[in-house]
Amino acid sequence: MRETECAAVVGLGLIGGSVARALTERGVRVLGFDHDDATLRAAVAEGGIHSPLAADWAGVEDAELVVIAVPVDAAAGVLAALAPRLGRALLVTDVGSTKASVVDAARAAGIGATFVGSHPLAGDHRSGWAASRAELFHGARVFLAPTAETTAAALRRAESLWRELGARAEQVDAAEHDRRLAVTSHLPQVAASALASVLAERGADRAELGPGGRDMTRLAGSSPAMWTAIAADNALPLSAAVAALEERLHDFRRALDGGDGAELRRFFERGNRWFGRADP
Amino acid sequence: MRETECAAVVGLGLIGGSVARALTERGVRVLGFDHDDATLRAAVAEGGIHSPLAADWAGVEDAELVVIAVPVDAAAGVLAALAPRLGRALLVTDVGSTKASVVDAARAAGIGATFVGSHPLAGDHRSGWAASRAELFHGARVFLAPTAETTAAALRRAESLWRELGARAEQVDAAEHDRRLAVTSHLPQVAASALASVLAERGADRAELGPGGRDMTRLAGSSPAMWTAIAADNALPLSAAVAALEERLHDFRRALDGGDGAELRRFFERGNRWFGRADP
Repeated sequence: MRETECAAVVGLGLIGGSVARALTERGVRVLGFDHDDATLRAAVAEGGIHSPLAADWAGVEDAELVVIAVPVDAAAGVLAALAPRLGRALLVTDVGSTKASVVDAARAAGIGATFVGSHPLAGDHRSGWAASRAELFHGARVFLAPTAETTAAALRRAESLWRELGARAEQVDAAEHDRRLAVTSHLPQVAASALASVLAERGADRAELGPGGRDMTRLAGSSPAMWTAIAADNALPLSAAVAALEERLHDFRRALDGGDGAELRRFFERGNRWFGRADP
Repeated sequence: MRETECAAVVGLGLIGGSVARALTERGVRVLGFDHDDATLRAAVAEGGIHSPLAADWAGVEDAELVVIAVPVDAAAGVLAALAPRLGRALLVTDVGSTKASVVDAARAAGIGATFVGSHPLAGDHRSGWAASRAELFHGARVFLAPTAETTAAALRRAESLWRELGARAEQVDAAEHDRRLAVTSHLPQVAASALASVLAERGADRAELGPGGRDMTRLAGSSPAMWTAIAADNALPLSAAVAALEERLHDFRRALDGGDGAELRRFFERGNRWFGRADP
């Protein structure tokens, strides 16, 4: 990459691992860290990173680009621990699914000027280094949430980073992002996990499902640790979204119990109309 | 097909159209009917059927195999109207998503001996003749629900039909099938439609979703008429399944509102454990 000689990637799961691989492929010297030693060894052995960062972060001072790719409840701690060593960093970013708390944490750690929160819409139910791949971000959308102090130069670097990785970046307000994603991303995850729980209670295996049922439960395979942190971090907007889903289900059930065919029909038509509006 | 010279297929949507195409490809003379004239003309023009059946069913007497592929709320009426003309039929079957009511209707129409209900797990959110294809059933599961009077010869013909079409048939009890499918198929459809309603209310388009969210809302595009009929026909088991999903969502929301991280984690872990048990 033109602008970056050395980058540090903290957390080598699906997203962090994919960032590391993509940067390494582009000739960047990537220092990587993961709390799991086996992951760190695999990343070095496969050439996905250049060398490991020690747990005391020695060496991170060399990085012009720092990417935090840990669960959202761990990001604030990592930012605080790294901040004193980030003198050379021109861009510090993360890849978490919520943005308000990490933007606050960056300001609190005194690196608001170089920080831009990132949220690539590139994950699926898989997780971990083994699932990571350099081309994960091709064609993906990435939301960029600057802090109040982010410099124009840092924001430009963030845009350039994701463009180089094949993604389409767009700037958002952190709080507005979180309210929006509660409905468009976190709610679908909760619905998949809840549906899987019902299937588990009834002793129905995934092999028993048709193509549609398999679509509806794929997300249940997502990382519990990651999603626990996201849900807790975005509790208020997510709670309202879950309540709305409960209401729609309750209304449907009332129509079903009351034999109200017209209302049942309207229920399925509302979803069908929404689907037909824009199927990408 | 070895056993069948002439078949009648009533209803040329995704499933009926695919049966008609597959039989025609195998050299069977297929008589087709659809209440939509444009569909009927397209089916003849594309060679998907040999000739159309008139609305008074004249000509259906020639068919050794009769396949009813109409919405489940229309099947009983079609069976009753056809029954007096089915003297030569060796197998009468349907393809609906519920089985108890159609098995009852076949007995009531006096064709219990030759009737075997079929439910191929081959649909997705698409519908109509345009989406039909001869290979739709390759590798699909098909549930077969005989009546109390179904002869062994008729059941063997049903097994042979679906095997020829590339599917794996297995025999089930009609009522047990419906209770099971309420959870494994009808509930996922309702969850997708309810989720789509929430997204519609919040003004979120499908283009805004990531890969997981798109998986979770694909079924919302299914045919409202078809699903209204299925839901109404399987109201009791489906109502219980929807109530169970509401409960899981409510429990999750209570943990979220109460800041109970351990319970949130258990929620996501239950779904993840179920997913890991058998991912086909």
